[in-house]
Amino acid sequence: MSTTGTETEVSPELLEEGRRAYALDREHVFHSWVAQGSFDPMVVTRAEGSHVWDGEGRRLIDFSSQMVNTNIGHQHPRVVEAIQEQARTLCTIAPAHVNPARSEAARLIAELAPGDLNHVFFTNAGADAVEHAIRMARLHTGRRKVLSAYRSYHGGTELAVNVTGDPRRFANDVGDAGVARFMPAYPYRSYFHSSSPGEETERALRHLEDTILLEGPDTLAALILESIPGTAGIYVPPPGYMAGVRALTRKYGIVYIADEVMAGFGRSGRWFSVDHWDVEPDLMTFAKGVTSGYVPLGGVAISEAIYETFRERPYPGGLTYSGHPLACATAVATIGAMRDEGMVEHAAWLGENVFGPGLAEIAERHRSVGETRGLGCFWAVELVKNRETREPLAPYGGSSSAMGEVVGAVKAGGVLPFANYNRIHVAPPLNISEEVARRGLEILDAALEVADRHAD
Amino acid sequence: MSTTGTETEVSPELLEEGRRAYALDREHVFHSWVAQGSFDPMVVTRAEGSHVWDGEGRRLIDFSSQMVNTNIGHQHPRVVEAIQEQARTLCTIAPAHVNPARSEAARLIAELAPGDLNHVFFTNAGADAVEHAIRMARLHTGRRKVLSAYRSYHGGTELAVNVTGDPRRFANDVGDAGVARFMPAYPYRSYFHSSSPGEETERALRHLEDTILLEGPDTLAALILESIPGTAGIYVPPPGYMAGVRALTRKYGIVYIADEVMAGFGRSGRWFSVDHWDVEPDLMTFAKGVTSGYVPLGGVAISEAIYETFRERPYPGGLTYSGHPLACATAVATIGAMRDEGMVEHAAWLGENVFGPGLAEIAERHRSVGETRGLGCFWAVELVKNRETREPLAPYGGSSSAMGEVVGAVKAGGVLPFANYNRIHVAPPLNISEEVARRGLEILDAALEVADRHAD
Ligand SMILES: Cc1ncc(COP(=O)(O)O)c(C=O)c1O
Ligand SMILES: Cc1ncc(COP(=O)(O)O)c(C=O)c1O
Repeated sequence: MSTTGTETEVSPELLEEGRRAYALDREHVFHSWVAQGSFDPMVVTRAEGSHVWDGEGRRLIDFSSQMVNTNIGHQHPRVVEAIQEQARTLCTIAPAHVNPARSEAARLIAELAPGDLNHVFFTNAGADAVEHAIRMARLHTGRRKVLSAYRSYHGGTELAVNVTGDPRRFANDVGDAGVARFMPAYPYRSYFHSSSPGEETERALRHLEDTILLEGPDTLAALILESIPGTAGIYVPPPGYMAGVRALTRKYGIVYIADEVMAGFGRSGRWFSVDHWDVEPDLMTFAKGVTSGYVPLGGVAISEAIYETFRERPYPGGLTYSGHPLACATAVATIGAMRDEGMVEHAAWLGENVFGPGLAEIAERHRSVGETRGLGCFWAVELVKNRETREPLAPYGGSSSAMGEVVGAVKAGGVLPFANYNRIHVAPPLNISEEVARRGLEILDAALEVADRHAD
Repeated sequence: MSTTGTETEVSPELLEEGRRAYALDREHVFHSWVAQGSFDPMVVTRAEGSHVWDGEGRRLIDFSSQMVNTNIGHQHPRVVEAIQEQARTLCTIAPAHVNPARSEAARLIAELAPGDLNHVFFTNAGADAVEHAIRMARLHTGRRKVLSAYRSYHGGTELAVNVTGDPRRFANDVGDAGVARFMPAYPYRSYFHSSSPGEETERALRHLEDTILLEGPDTLAALILESIPGTAGIYVPPPGYMAGVRALTRKYGIVYIADEVMAGFGRSGRWFSVDHWDVEPDLMTFAKGVTSGYVPLGGVAISEAIYETFRERPYPGGLTYSGHPLACATAVATIGAMRDEGMVEHAAWLGENVFGPGLAEIAERHRSVGETRGLGCFWAVELVKNRETREPLAPYGGSSSAMGEVVGAVKAGGVLPFANYNRIHVAPPLNISEEVARRGLEILDAALEVADRHAD
């Protein structure tokens, strides 16, 4: 096991604390998405900027941003201070009472959000933002069904996991959630037999319109779509696709919900990923990057037209912590730090100058790499057994020993990746330095030798 | 308008900040449960212990604990410090990685929880705790339907609002959520024509068993029940009812989910309200009091039998902030403060010596008071137009100008109440001093003159 020679960066006390925490975790903590008995979690003893330290005190470059949420890196001093200051002032207050932190967070988000999304309903995270956005759309249109894309993720609560187009839905899907699904535009694995991005756009839009017509436009309340599908593969929509989706939803009076929970708040080098295509949704869900996850927060940005629906009519939804002051103060500080330090611009620069070209070179060197794609600090490396057949290194919805080995090698090399099925995602903090970003790519490059052994 | 002569406790700068926040709130903040246009929220400029200060700098006794969550009062120094310290150490980490704060919070909650609820799945709040508890029950039993009580509240997301037995469900209920409902034991407004608590218990249990048999026991995954229904009226179950519910769910192999989101963490003078009746549920949802709402947190405490179901089989659910370190550190500090300061015992003492007798006297003095009831720091005053007919001062699910006047008078007197339909709830922090508690009751007493004017 290679160590990076940085063991001294974590004190023996912290390492011991990590061991105790591990034992208690196995005894008492129930984990997301896994079988509890065989789960063997990694201990994190420390985290700072773009690095985390594991249970043995080894430093790793954080190419995961955890759940792709620490967009400003770990422990940003300005945001830590803002949390401490708001904690000193006022931790919490009921949603019905006016609070300055909440007002300011709403103002800032409305300012950043595209189009006339001038009103903000705050939730605790992404899943409940999606749930409330769908409710707003249903009540606004008086319709029930929701169109959602396969190969997508929208959250873990019942409705959110049912609009999700990922296998994690299967165990929860009994077909009663009022969801109709369509195939997304995904050039590398086209569902439409297309041979170019342009053709993919044309055919994917035709398929979407066919689906709308066959489902019945008047039965469809909303279409929900990740602006760049994240966990499902960071497959950037081909040129023209997003504008086409906007046009179709407008044509048929369907509320267009842009899910920017993962793709938003600078992740792809614009404040929101829809901004790449100048598209203005009717509702936009956000979470993760809005506070970098330092304090849980999510929400729905709401257009004037949908706000009008609830001007006289009560909105039948709510939650205890809507617009939580500590969370909102964290959002204000996070947005401030991102703006003042030019993080969104830096993310765009890294995408164009470091990750794009660097991953393209990696793709050339490794026969196991089927495709690399992304924008800003949001990239996927799709691993295949064979470049011609594009057979994935792990099946859709599953794992494989080959992928296990690859992820192990990446970690052993000193990078913490975000892995999903046959993909390794590169999603570091937006303010990662060029040097650390390049070092991370080198480690990834070396680790992919392991993947090559499993590819023809 | 009476002022309490404490205007100097809020600086002119804070008052000005509150006015700015109000204007921005109306422009950009979308609020829970209300029509946005006519909503006129109260500004809170400061909060400390059992007091809040409004937009004019007037001090109010907080008999609401906000959303019945600030069980340790506002700005408890030990918990504020713990937040600041954890913020300095590590704000966030992905749920898959071991974190000491999360491990310790899980250990403490497992220790406090009844029976063999030894495993904790952390969520962000109450609604998602309910959603995940139901999912666990469904997968554990292989059944789908959920039994839930009318006159209950379980949260605002789609599934949670559908198991809710409150009119706030209506706009979201299209009958497809897999929910079967039963009438709760509610002696004051018995659904069973009973004339004593003993008879109510007997008949309510008979009704529950009838419902189970008529629905089909083998179709029922779970029964979800607030241990003391909170927002719906703090109607304490009559003796024997909870034990009967436990026995029936055991008899028919139905997972019993105790919702302790509002009733738990000391609210009723025991750590959990089920403890009053020595009942051990299969799953227990919690939120609110676990952190006093200082940082959003909720969760499900899981029995060994249900844990076993997910030992080899992956649990198909999760969320970005499960076991959030900042939230978990807050829980650890909150529980520590509650223990070391004997808050749960104090709450029980206040219930027996101050609120119980004090509210009984108020009931005697006011013909508008139909019933007062509760335990610990968890009390309801049910207002009626007529004590004989028990006609409520506002209809079920609605408001009335009479109730509006009463709430206005309570506030003008210097108490911030929690009001719902025809009820005023008395739910102050558990560590409210006897003196402030008595002062609050005096103010309530005086304000109820207004209610009496609307009663025969
Ligand atoms: C696009 C998208 N939507 C929604 C969610 C759900 O967010 P949360 O886990 O905060 O509920 C996620 C989480 O990964 C996401 O990536
Ligand atoms: C008994 C009960 N369950 C669940 C909830 C939902 O909790 P949250 O608002 O945190 O989602 C509440 C909130 O008031 C509650 O009182």
